[in-house]
Amino acid sequence: MNSDLSSLQIKDIGEQGLLERLQRFCPPEIIGDDAAVLLTAPEKSLVVTTDMLVDGVHFSEVTTSPEDAGWRAAAANLSDLAAMGASPLGITVGLGLPGEVRVSWVERLYQGMTECLQKYNTPIVGGDIVRSPITTLAITAFGQVDPNLIIRRSAAQVGEAIVVTGIHGASRVGLELLLHPELGTNLHPEVKNALIKAHQRPNPRLDVLPILWKILESQPKMAIAGMDSSDGLADAIFQICRASSVGAILESRKIPLPKVFDHWLIKDQILEYALYGGEDFELVLCLPKELAFELVQQLGQGAALVGTITPGATVILHDEHEKFPDQELSLSQGFQHFSH
Amino acid sequence: MNSDLSSLQIKDIGEQGLLERLQRFCPPEIIGDDAAVLLTAPEKSLVVTTDMLVDGVHFSEVTTSPEDAGWRAAAANLSDLAAMGASPLGITVGLGLPGEVRVSWVERLYQGMTECLQKYNTPIVGGDIVRSPITTLAITAFGQVDPNLIIRRSAAQVGEAIVVTGIHGASRVGLELLLHPELGTNLHPEVKNALIKAHQRPNPRLDVLPILWKILESQPKMAIAGMDSSDGLADAIFQICRASSVGAILESRKIPLPKVFDHWLIKDQILEYALYGGEDFELVLCLPKELAFELVQQLGQGAALVGTITPGATVILHDEHEKFPDQELSLSQGFQHFSH
Repeated sequence: MNSDLSSLQIKDIGEQGLLERLQRFCPPEIIGDDAAVLLTAPEKSLVVTTDMLVDGVHFSEVTTSPEDAGWRAAAANLSDLAAMGASPLGITVGLGLPGEVRVSWVERLYQGMTECLQKYNTPIVGGDIVRSPITTLAITAFGQVDPNLIIRRSAAQVGEAIVVTGIHGASRVGLELLLHPELGTNLHPEVKNALIKAHQRPNPRLDVLPILWKILESQPKMAIAGMDSSDGLADAIFQICRASSVGAILESRKIPLPKVFDHWLIKDQILEYALYGGEDFELVLCLPKELAFELVQQLGQGAALVGTITPGATVILHDEHEKFPDQELSLSQGFQHFSH
Repeated sequence: MNSDLSSLQIKDIGEQGLLERLQRFCPPEIIGDDAAVLLTAPEKSLVVTTDMLVDGVHFSEVTTSPEDAGWRAAAANLSDLAAMGASPLGITVGLGLPGEVRVSWVERLYQGMTECLQKYNTPIVGGDIVRSPITTLAITAFGQVDPNLIIRRSAAQVGEAIVVTGIHGASRVGLELLLHPELGTNLHPEVKNALIKAHQRPNPRLDVLPILWKILESQPKMAIAGMDSSDGLADAIFQICRASSVGAILESRKIPLPKVFDHWLIKDQILEYALYGGEDFELVLCLPKELAFELVQQLGQGAALVGTITPGATVILHDEHEKFPDQELSLSQGFQHFSH
């Protein structure tokens, strides 16, 4: 691409011109009508989720390339589908853009978005592009799920084990390394890159679903409890406990953390990132112990049993090696928009 | 509502507080998970459409109350479903809001949105609320359609009649009356209010679909051509002609216009509003002549046969009472975002 092309702005080609350029990211059969038509499997329920992302609030040129912003936006929505047990059917993309935004920026955003989507065979099936003083991205994702295999926050049962499908805290550490490149100088470059990648290119855990379905095949019909950990592991546990009217014990030493932490961060900081950092996009599932164990075995790679659902309403963080082994967990460090 | 309450801003209650207040506009069963679950009918296809609306670009406090902005946003999306022949299943709403926006403004927006949606039994099934420097509304609507009854722009056949389901130009005149209240002083207040209402509370023509299906019941399987006239009647005709590789003759004297025009506007202005004004949200359908006639008969209320699909690629505006009866129609007055 020569410099003339890369400096082309939205206002130079107009909404229609941009739409035509972005059509190469969409399957050709869906273009040209007022809405997209998708085939769904009979006997399945439709699952829908939506996300708004605003420049400077949810992404920033400082830490995020347009490709990564696109990947992360797609990944977050696919993760919401995975959190319900649903397989993706497609997404729609709404874009609000100042006229001064470069066409190449938008194309790179779509490039990153489709790289993530293609990994999960998910097409962009529609969209809208409008003028706006601030770059805004609105994604709606659609999926389908067998009604008997819907994962719900409200289905956790006392005595069930809590499974996490992977390492927590890596995305938050990756962000730290991007914001302060001088940190983590003791880290092996490969390790450092892996952490940064965990932040830039998180993977929605749609791959967990077929493994989970296989394990549940031999079971009588049971409700599956869970959600994703996009807002942090603590938030996920609290949401599940609140929706299911239960409590939980979380064993802090069982939470899978990036191994490299010892070289750089103290234990409390590591744990805080794992609990409150967010954006790891793992699944947090509550299952009878044997099934939970089988799932962890089959997933490998950082999956772990991290606790147990209890009666009551409190979430206890337990560490038998501490002077005071039981500590009540709070959501106070959780993420809240609009705070003063 | 006392003045303390009505001056409450988003930043006073936070994202979570606002979400809780808005939940009364959503069916209770869909709240609380990462995504909404919906039942769809087997053997039907899913139809998806999305719209972004930005404060100052797509709505404005000057001409639009929050209730009307909400109604119009919902109506536009339902009209896109009607344009495909689809019955609505639900919508998701993404909201970007500055902290200074009044909570009551958002509640009034939702009020207007749900008033329109309830008329068509359509629930709000999900959403996202985020901080943004500019008020932004992203709506995604989804519906379902019998795959044999999908309405497509590309299905028009030479010889078919062009049907419009109602009056064109009323929304544009209503806007004019709102922007310049001094105009139309000769209009009867009732007529004036009806025109303003055509702009503020347009009705998506989902009611046309069952009538159309009934008429087609006795027919061998046929492709239905059409779209909505949200961007103006001229745009709809051009889009259909382009997608179907056909031309059209549009008989200007057959286009149903608001009757009141004679008292105020000259004929050319009337016709321009009808062709290019947009936002009438009628359907423009191409059908074999007898079926088209039957549809117009059954719809009544401004529905009309306005032209014929022809070979070629040009769209002719025909008026036998003019000195030069045939005039080639252009899209140049069509609406284009991002224009300089």
